[in-house]
Amino acid sequence: MRATPIVQQILSKYEGETPGVKANLCRILMNGELGGTGKVIILPVDQGFEHGGARSFAANPAAYDPHYHYQLAIDAGLNAFAAPLGLLEAGADTFAGQIPTILKVNSANSLIPNAALKDQAITASVDDALRIGASAIGFTIYPGSSAGLDMFEEISAMREEAAAKGVATVIWSYPRGEALDKNGETAIDIAAYAAQIAALLGAHIIKIKLSTDHLSLPEAKAVYEEQKIDISTQAARVKHCMDASFAGRRIVVFSGGAKKGADSVYDDARAIRDGGGNGSIIGRNSFQRDRADALAMLSELVNIYKGNE
Amino acid sequence: MRATPIVQQILSKYEGETPGVKANLCRILMNGELGGTGKVIILPVDQGFEHGGARSFAANPAAYDPHYHYQLAIDAGLNAFAAPLGLLEAGADTFAGQIPTILKVNSANSLIPNAALKDQAITASVDDALRIGASAIGFTIYPGSSAGLDMFEEISAMREEAAAKGVATVIWSYPRGEALDKNGETAIDIAAYAAQIAALLGAHIIKIKLSTDHLSLPEAKAVYEEQKIDISTQAARVKHCMDASFAGRRIVVFSGGAKKGADSVYDDARAIRDGGGNGSIIGRNSFQRDRADALAMLSELVNIYKGNE
Amino acid sequence: MRATPIVQQILSKYEGETPGVKANLCRILMNGELGGTGKVIILPVDQGFEHGGARSFAANPAAYDPHYHYQLAIDAGLNAFAAPLGLLEAGADTFAGQIPTILKVNSANSLIPNAALKDQAITASVDDALRIGASAIGFTIYPGSSAGLDMFEEISAMREEAAAKGVATVIWSYPRGEALDKNGETAIDIAAYAAQIAALLGAHIIKIKLSTDHLSLPEAKAVYEEQKIDISTQAARVKHCMDASFAGRRIVVFSGGAKKGADSVYDDARAIRDGGGNGSIIGRNSFQRDRADALAMLSELVNIYKGNE
Amino acid sequence: MRATPIVQQILSKYEGETPGVKANLCRILMNGELGGTGKVIILPVDQGFEHGGARSFAANPAAYDPHYHYQLAIDAGLNAFAAPLGLLEAGADTFAGQIPTILKVNSANSLIPNAALKDQAITASVDDALRIGASAIGFTIYPGSSAGLDMFEEISAMREEAAAKGVATVIWSYPRGEALDKNGETAIDIAAYAAQIAALLGAHIIKIKLSTDHLSLPEAKAVYEEQKIDISTQAARVKHCMDASFAGRRIVVFSGGAKKGADSVYDDARAIRDGGGNGSIIGRNSFQRDRADALAMLSELVNIYKGNE
Amino acid sequence: MRATPIVQQILSKYEGETPGVKANLCRILMNGELGGTGKVIILPVDQGFEHGGARSFAANPAAYDPHYHYQLAIDAGLNAFAAPLGLLEAGADTFAGQIPTILKVNSANSLIPNAALKDQAITASVDDALRIGASAIGFTIYPGSSAGLDMFEEISAMREEAAAKGVATVIWSYPRGEALDKNGETAIDIAAYAAQIAALLGAHIIKIKLSTDHLSLPEAKAVYEEQKIDISTQAARVKHCMDASFAGRRIVVFSGGAKKGADSVYDDARAIRDGGGNGSIIGRNSFQRDRADALAMLSELVNIYKGNE
Repeated sequence: MRATPIVQQILSKYEGETPGVKANLCRILMNGELGGTGKVIILPVDQGFEHGGARSFAANPAAYDPHYHYQLAIDAGLNAFAAPLGLLEAGADTFAGQIPTILKVNSANSLIPNAALKDQAITASVDDALRIGASAIGFTIYPGSSAGLDMFEEISAMREEAAAKGVATVIWSYPRGEALDKNGETAIDIAAYAAQIAALLGAHIIKIKLSTDHLSLPEAKAVYEEQKIDISTQAARVKHCMDASFAGRRIVVFSGGAKKGADSVYDDARAIRDGGGNGSIIGRNSFQRDRADALAMLSELVNIYKGNE
Repeated sequence: MRATPIVQQILSKYEGETPGVKANLCRILMNGELGGTGKVIILPVDQGFEHGGARSFAANPAAYDPHYHYQLAIDAGLNAFAAPLGLLEAGADTFAGQIPTILKVNSANSLIPNAALKDQAITASVDDALRIGASAIGFTIYPGSSAGLDMFEEISAMREEAAAKGVATVIWSYPRGEALDKNGETAIDIAAYAAQIAALLGAHIIKIKLSTDHLSLPEAKAVYEEQKIDISTQAARVKHCMDASFAGRRIVVFSGGAKKGADSVYDDARAIRDGGGNGSIIGRNSFQRDRADALAMLSELVNIYKGNE
Repeated sequence: MRATPIVQQILSKYEGETPGVKANLCRILMNGELGGTGKVIILPVDQGFEHGGARSFAANPAAYDPHYHYQLAIDAGLNAFAAPLGLLEAGADTFAGQIPTILKVNSANSLIPNAALKDQAITASVDDALRIGASAIGFTIYPGSSAGLDMFEEISAMREEAAAKGVATVIWSYPRGEALDKNGETAIDIAAYAAQIAALLGAHIIKIKLSTDHLSLPEAKAVYEEQKIDISTQAARVKHCMDASFAGRRIVVFSGGAKKGADSVYDDARAIRDGGGNGSIIGRNSFQRDRADALAMLSELVNIYKGNE
Repeated sequence: MRATPIVQQILSKYEGETPGVKANLCRILMNGELGGTGKVIILPVDQGFEHGGARSFAANPAAYDPHYHYQLAIDAGLNAFAAPLGLLEAGADTFAGQIPTILKVNSANSLIPNAALKDQAITASVDDALRIGASAIGFTIYPGSSAGLDMFEEISAMREEAAAKGVATVIWSYPRGEALDKNGETAIDIAAYAAQIAALLGAHIIKIKLSTDHLSLPEAKAVYEEQKIDISTQAARVKHCMDASFAGRRIVVFSGGAKKGADSVYDDARAIRDGGGNGSIIGRNSFQRDRADALAMLSELVNIYKGNE
Repeated sequence: MRATPIVQQILSKYEGETPGVKANLCRILMNGELGGTGKVIILPVDQGFEHGGARSFAANPAAYDPHYHYQLAIDAGLNAFAAPLGLLEAGADTFAGQIPTILKVNSANSLIPNAALKDQAITASVDDALRIGASAIGFTIYPGSSAGLDMFEEISAMREEAAAKGVATVIWSYPRGEALDKNGETAIDIAAYAAQIAALLGAHIIKIKLSTDHLSLPEAKAVYEEQKIDISTQAARVKHCMDASFAGRRIVVFSGGAKKGADSVYDDARAIRDGGGNGSIIGRNSFQRDRADALAMLSELVNIYKGNE
């Protein structure tokens, strides 16, 4: 496998990083249909912790089986597959080496009381990632939560260990908590702030949500208006989030949320592409469709990221 | 001892697991009257922590002696015997090698104040399990409790250590806590969610309670009704819980609770068998009967799991 | 020193325990006037932490000096002497090897605010015990306290370390805390529960208080009445507590509390003996008397345990 | 590089410190336009954590790129550049060895709820500093906060590790928290107290804010008035803070806060110089101006510290 | 240096202690004008943490400089000099070996909110003490505080490490917290209790405050009155505190508090001497006087402890 010039350029921005981490980022960037383009699509399956099995998989019962997801990610030519430890282990031998995996190392669930919703549990280790051959760890932070500082400390320590062992770090930066109302969680100023925090924490890949044109913090609102920052379109907002990610020196992927119509998924992807984002991380919209529909939709997304649509 | 094809098939689903863990799962699956069938009956004696000695053993005073339980499990031809450290140690030498043991490494008690009822104390270590020759550790999690995230972190770390040392992990996944009312603790949506969480945490054997057809979480209720998930019979509910355990890739045993009539115990076992579950974990219904009655009842359960009744 | 058959039988019940622990239990069981009988009297001097120096020692000012207690325990022919680190250290060299010592490794005090009364501080380590030549560590747990689970975790870890290093573990199991009222702390159902918990935690020697015939927990009361458990006399209650200690497989000693008349102390000892208990742990009733009186009283206790009175 | 006599004299006051720490202090003191004068100007860029990307960089969008700050600090001939891990890493290879760097190892953010505003998260380690070639770690303490004692413990441990590994420690001593009102945070008695605490904690370089002539603590006010301590001018207050920093045995730099007019920045620098302070740490006033203005202003500050204005 | 018989006798009471600890106690006991008498005067300078620089040193501005205190302790012929890490380090090289030092390893400050006043931060380690050549660590406990148990655990662990490394331990036992009113903090029953706790924790040198004849705890008051314990004079109260310190087996020094008239300081010293105490620890009364006055006063104190006045 020879890295393309665009992938080499992306890797060159991870200055002073260990060759092990760069090799794993390279594997993700060079894998699948988008391999070598600098664009990525990742399949995340951590909804079983969040919502339980039935809400996640009953719409497409084949998806109860961990093997289903491995096979879907491979057959669709995606760049990587992300899941918690138990799920990845259940296919780790059968699919070894066939697709880069991202071990999600912390998780929340909707069974815990409200007060605990602002934190997650660490459910796997960096050594677990090494043992099952994962290319990266994935970690969720909740900027805006009272547990936020603790989560920052946890990922800082895990990231240091992971990088020393040649494992890359993906940070899910999801604003949530007492400091934010519902509109605030998806406001553009908050999304860009979340990206900046993930970058400062040393994330190699940053995962944030697509945002609205709402401005949540009064001090930020004043600056956005004074500096006339363009947040009028989704593409403009993606571009602003790339600026906040060290002026594009970090790989950023965007998530779309609950299942919705295919056209809406495509519109999101075009905005990500046009704003300079690196790609999509797309879970329920993949595996809650039946396999044929999911493969068709993912194929179309590949076309969009290749600039063909 | 040669593993039967059905046991080899079960073990093959633990992909990438250490040979030590597989060997211990094999010992449990191949032991006793059900050895080699893929079905298991386990005797758990951790009620002394939960309720004290008198409430646990006064109905059958011979059971105050730890040796009683070892001998009962051996004579009844069960697959394994589970208990806290002090109790297992009290017979560890006399019965060494005669039956696989599961060291229960955390425990709660009904003497602590209400506010503390949602957590357990870690009362033994993985090295304790190695020292006394146990095949597995047993750990209780309380999904739905404010201490739930901490318990997930504890078992994740202990499971990693145990697997590296060749010791299997059994997770008692018992919904309890502020987020659940009494009906919720035994609702089918919650039971299946509890099984899913245990599987994602990497449990080798999952222990859950038999459930009712109640649906507790509104978001789940909507999905169950929309997708027409069959929860009308106990066997159907067992099948649904097996789906939620990676489509049957994990061993799941079911518990029955307080002492009740023998017929009711048999009905439970038939439902577990017919739903595709792996077996029963049966404590008070064993040792609170006198020895002759208990042996007769366990013998009948073996017959049921063999498909003879 | 050759162990008597009765001592060998007691030691045989500690199955799979390290030879180092058995050697130290043997030293305690074979020492002093009761050496070899299976009965024990222990002098505990940890009241300085609990109540300060004046309340503990002013009634007999010679007792301010740590040497006083060592000498009293030796001259009275007791089995062991238990105290916190500072006090044991103050005579560790002068009396080295002359009497087995038990290092009390956690302590409370009556200076702390009410809210903190339910916990103790760890004030010495297993390595401290090794350094000063102690035969055992002593640790207090408060079943019924909100700090109870933490205390269980602390002693579980210390016990594991101690056993690996050949040091025995004595657990002071003292019901206390939010879950109990004053009558509950000395109720027989609670005392037996406390003994059961200590046994399950792996204590080699269990220390509990003598109890009343009160039944505190409603669920327990129902069982005691249904099963007609005899709790009518102190000897019957001692016997019930021995049942709860793995049917007598563990050494259990009983404490008597604040200073009282000698006859009352003797009555307690006869009940312990007749109920099958292993002996007394007797502090303030020893050292708050002047030396001659204390020696006479302890001599009489020896006679009682020898079955002569 | 040969250290000037004045730098050698400063270094001689760090008695018994490791040669590694002295070497790194020497590198900072000898670098750039003020190299060898004993005066220092440091560029800190940690506002992305505090306020997010837009509020920090939108006024001068080139500053979204980490390389911009490295280049500005080098071109302006500053002594050192301070930033969080992610930002320093993004230029660590390109600018390796071109300017001493200070790794800011803890950080707060304005997204967390009010109650958490009094603490920071540790987001990098001493080994991170070694790995990226930083000369020092930077750590913020909040004297006056309920988390203050924890922060003191954190920096005490990190400082010990850093010094053993030859890395210097800069303490940002920022009074904040429940014990202080808004005027108190910048009062001269509090500022001097903050400097004293940092010195006692073993800081090699102390960073405090310039103060007002307000006296916040009544007990302190009485002493200031009785002893007639001169706090009438900014230079006098700087001198008093130097006294509180072991009579000038420690390097102290002062910060100026939000962006303001250049003349005001120059006045601050003259007061620092005249009061015997070691220099300025100047962030938003540098990078929120465009590059030409910033370079002109920094050049003027160099002149002031050289005593030319 | 040959230890005098009285010093050898004191050292003999530290039974089983490491030779390293005894050597450091010997150094302190044999140093200065009182060397070899068994009496000690110690200069403590930790008020910068407690009250800030101005309140501590503005009355005698030369005292802002750490060197001032080293020189004062040496010139006055004191036994030891105690201070926090930063302050000791600032003279550690210049004065190496010229006077035994005690590294104060925890500290409070008056800037923290009220709720935090009952705890201290650990600001230095045992290895710090070794690195700067200190003879002992000093640690403050607050019996009566809700943080008291944690502080006991901290010093127990540090003391164990220190003793293993040959460093002695001085415990400042200062009753404070929710359980005590202002009169209680200096009551004789509390002071004696505080001494007893420090002794039980294994302190080599105990530092307590001189007390009043107030009796704070009702249970204690009853005992003091019943046993007719003499607390009528300061000398009698000192003697009682020595009893509570293992009948004089531990070195006990007394502190006097805020600056006051010289005659009052002398009266205190005579009471300490006459009650059998080992000496004074005297901070603000030394360094808030000008150097000539301080030297004269300290010389007079030496005379008193020599029994000449």
